[in-house]
Amino acid sequence: MPRTAYVNGRYLSHAKAAVHIEDRGYQFADGVYEVVPVHNGILVDESLHLDRLERSLGELRIAMPMRREALKLISREVMRRNHLSNGFLYLQITRGVAPRDHKFPVAAKPAVVMTVRQMKPASKEKLEAGVSVITVPDIRWARRDIKSVSLLPNCLAKQQAHEAGALEAWMVDGEGQVTEGTSTNAWIITQDNVLVTRNANQDILNGITRVALLERVAEEGVTFEERSFTVEEALSAKEAFITSSTNYVMPVTAIDGKAVGNGHPGLLTMKLREAYVSYIESAGAGRAKTAA
Amino acid sequence: MPRTAYVNGRYLSHAKAAVHIEDRGYQFADGVYEVVPVHNGILVDESLHLDRLERSLGELRIAMPMRREALKLISREVMRRNHLSNGFLYLQITRGVAPRDHKFPVAAKPAVVMTVRQMKPASKEKLEAGVSVITVPDIRWARRDIKSVSLLPNCLAKQQAHEAGALEAWMVDGEGQVTEGTSTNAWIITQDNVLVTRNANQDILNGITRVALLERVAEEGVTFEERSFTVEEALSAKEAFITSSTNYVMPVTAIDGKAVGNGHPGLLTMKLREAYVSYIESAGAGRAKTAA
Repeated sequence: MPRTAYVNGRYLSHAKAAVHIEDRGYQFADGVYEVVPVHNGILVDESLHLDRLERSLGELRIAMPMRREALKLISREVMRRNHLSNGFLYLQITRGVAPRDHKFPVAAKPAVVMTVRQMKPASKEKLEAGVSVITVPDIRWARRDIKSVSLLPNCLAKQQAHEAGALEAWMVDGEGQVTEGTSTNAWIITQDNVLVTRNANQDILNGITRVALLERVAEEGVTFEERSFTVEEALSAKEAFITSSTNYVMPVTAIDGKAVGNGHPGLLTMKLREAYVSYIESAGAGRAKTAA
Repeated sequence: MPRTAYVNGRYLSHAKAAVHIEDRGYQFADGVYEVVPVHNGILVDESLHLDRLERSLGELRIAMPMRREALKLISREVMRRNHLSNGFLYLQITRGVAPRDHKFPVAAKPAVVMTVRQMKPASKEKLEAGVSVITVPDIRWARRDIKSVSLLPNCLAKQQAHEAGALEAWMVDGEGQVTEGTSTNAWIITQDNVLVTRNANQDILNGITRVALLERVAEEGVTFEERSFTVEEALSAKEAFITSSTNYVMPVTAIDGKAVGNGHPGLLTMKLREAYVSYIESAGAGRAKTAA
């Protein structure tokens, strides 16, 4: 089936979907994006994603290209045309097309691209093995709270992880504290069963899966702390995992080649994964919130 | 006259020149660029620009899309088709098109875009008035030596300058030292007539105009130091200026609303501008080096 993409008002064959060479996303990374999981035809936590989208746009003073309801209708139409039931929606909004000049154009209209992609759930084998991460210096800019397409350092770190046989790179700030993964949030569970993830400020992107999981954590009665942790603390932790819109909750079993805990996915980690998966399968994450 | 752009092997009407929505330049800022001044039909310091281009690509492990001689031929063809004599060439190379995934694609082919734009020399009035700059915190990533399209913080700072009635923003690091402008290098001349500009390492982009001017400075017998300077030192300087491929040497007469020196373009600054303009009008910057 040929894929269809939405680009600035038109539904196009994915192969031919294009943006102008002077789109500021291309010349300046002047745009933002969201990746929304689609589970059984439902856009998971769509409202939270759209809230964050509006916040990112607001921080960059890019206007919403259309009303939220219109974005929701288009996302459903892209899903429908691609027969998407499970996978994710990718939505990118840039400041638009204008003759190249760093300062904001006066008349540009925000550009909108939407695509979807099929994705299978993580395999049993992958979940049983967990994933490896490496640690790298965090060399990104100071506004990681904005979900911008300025992702070059993330790409470089992800590639470094890949070449080291790892799935993800945890980025470490100047004080030796882990900020987050290149496209995931980082979590540990201490030997005292305290769940720890970095507090959300300008140093990290506040993942929607992070937010949704923290709600589940509270429901499950798990003790948690939102604070920084060092690589050393992570290495001496009982369990570790990452969260993201495409990984959900994924156990981390090795950091920099060293085993975390007993080297197997942690029990609490898997319990939290189940709680999260139950959540997205329930009405809570789905229809109720995303009804257009 | 309709403008023509070069995009991945084709010469296209500028209005219709487009790249795929999954070009990594658009989704990840995974690309580099150069702006080469064109003076009387000559690409100024073309070799230095191509050297830097190759270095930027090398640092990101993006392959040169074609041999240097081929890039030179295309740039001349773009100039010819646009009847460009004075202005600049914009050249962008990204890692290419691939399904969205942070890590480097195995098979992507680097994407190449080239455009040119007419530009008039700075007016007498502008040169007599000089330009204003403001200072802002430098919030960029740690590899400013790579001329990547990851320019979102530069755009935000340039916009801030614009709204403050200034042409440029000088970015200031955590130690209170000026790094550079958003698209220019920053220079001061102390009360003792010492020319100062920040040393080129990963903290700044080593401007080609900066490099070429330093050669002229040596020829002119001006004392110079490549080192950091603070905003305070700049405010107590005798003269200040910025350099770039489109500004050449441009006097700075105010910083954060306070006059630099006597508030007029400095004598040594204008002497250096003349030396630079003579240089680009001579064979030195032009034909000899750029002959394809």
